[in-house]
Amino acid sequence: MDYPVDYLMDQAPGAPIRSGIPEHGRIPKYYAVKVQVASLLDELGEGGLLPPERDLAVRFEVSRETVRQALRDLLLEGRLRRLGRGTVVAGPKLEQPLSLASYTEGVRRQGRRPGRGLIGLERSPCSAALAAELGLEPGEPVWHMERVLLADDERVGLESTYVAVERVPHLDTDFEPDSSFYGYLRDRLGIRFGSADERLETVLATPREALLIGTPPALPMLLIHRMSRDTDGRPLERVRSLYRGDRFSFTARLEGSGQVEGWEQPEDEGGQEG
Amino acid sequence: MDYPVDYLMDQAPGAPIRSGIPEHGRIPKYYAVKVQVASLLDELGEGGLLPPERDLAVRFEVSRETVRQALRDLLLEGRLRRLGRGTVVAGPKLEQPLSLASYTEGVRRQGRRPGRGLIGLERSPCSAALAAELGLEPGEPVWHMERVLLADDERVGLESTYVAVERVPHLDTDFEPDSSFYGYLRDRLGIRFGSADERLETVLATPREALLIGTPPALPMLLIHRMSRDTDGRPLERVRSLYRGDRFSFTARLEGSGQVEGWEQPEDEGGQEG
Repeated sequence: MDYPVDYLMDQAPGAPIRSGIPEHGRIPKYYAVKVQVASLLDELGEGGLLPPERDLAVRFEVSRETVRQALRDLLLEGRLRRLGRGTVVAGPKLEQPLSLASYTEGVRRQGRRPGRGLIGLERSPCSAALAAELGLEPGEPVWHMERVLLADDERVGLESTYVAVERVPHLDTDFEPDSSFYGYLRDRLGIRFGSADERLETVLATPREALLIGTPPALPMLLIHRMSRDTDGRPLERVRSLYRGDRFSFTARLEGSGQVEGWEQPEDEGGQEG
Repeated sequence: MDYPVDYLMDQAPGAPIRSGIPEHGRIPKYYAVKVQVASLLDELGEGGLLPPERDLAVRFEVSRETVRQALRDLLLEGRLRRLGRGTVVAGPKLEQPLSLASYTEGVRRQGRRPGRGLIGLERSPCSAALAAELGLEPGEPVWHMERVLLADDERVGLESTYVAVERVPHLDTDFEPDSSFYGYLRDRLGIRFGSADERLETVLATPREALLIGTPPALPMLLIHRMSRDTDGRPLERVRSLYRGDRFSFTARLEGSGQVEGWEQPEDEGGQEG
């Protein structure tokens, strides 16, 4: 087969460099196939049906196992998705703004319909570690609410919220679990968010999470830890939000000259380093 | 073997829920081993040497292949790392603030020594797509500078910067490639960053990237696309930064009541939704 050669001129901004493989490096065969299939996906366009594995194997003169490995990568990266018994070209990832206005708002902005499905709502005594984060005493009752996140009825994430029972005493009877928790806090309890610390990382889905979200096991996920406070600076909720890595990206606009507004830069002396 | 049972009380905030596996779900054997090994890692502490695979197989009464699968996950997630011929407990992920003050500053704040190694610096005509982003005419000369990012001499990422030759005419002769590009822009050319749009996603390392960064192939990476502008609002650089997913997390402090300072919220009507 011909190995693809990419030049800077042809390349979409943000695409990985494929030329200039260091001399001791070789392009694995499956990766060369992946690059070819990726070009094919661009030609087919969103929703286009991928030819069967055996046809691709013939076309690229490689084994079906090599084709399978290439397709596995493209599935994990969200370039392809399974539809019924076929495999189709996936649409672009959802772009979720990293901001206090969270899931519902972000999904709506992209013309998708946000939704949530309740997995469980339980009340239990707070662990020492969680108590420290929420400003409670260990053993005080906390709610743990777990919901699957939906976009146009597709399961795209999983959200675990921990909040003191004292703050939202009637969460179990008063709150519609497929609605916005932030809307509930604001409209029913008059609680507004003042700030949040977030930490974002990539993790592998656990078997339980993969099952709940309906993803292949060990799919890379984006995990956001959020610790939020109300407008009085009082700790409010501790959230663990898991988003399908193949379906989501997160966006941010950073402002400021040497200093970013809205961001705490504890040891910043105003310098910019890159 | 005994399957681990976790309760909310025992759980560290932010850890995945392991209890309450839906009834049609089973815990795969490798995952049960992974959870046991993870507890062992907590006992051993950072830098602790993991017992050999065969000992773990005996201890947990599973095959070596099952142990290997569990260790593979823990390596991908950055809980373990290879050291010489052994495997040791890894330290926590580096926490990089998402802000205009970028790599150098972020790494320094954590008491690590930032560094960079030049992979290549080339001058070429700008593609149409890149020209649109950088506010240039297609074909105008641009620099492409590619550097490996280091923390205490460990390779942790890869950065591709595209910038118009017109803006930094002497980049090839005037700039020390293991120093801060942002420092160079500021101190030598008087250019300051005004704002940047960032998009963060998880991708798999390409074989070339894995080779350059020294990671296992197909390690989940965190990719940040940055499009920055100077204080006059003129496009400045287009950056593709790839960070090892097992070594990095990104943090943000979001401020504002219903509105996040420093963030553009184009269609926001001041509402908070969660």
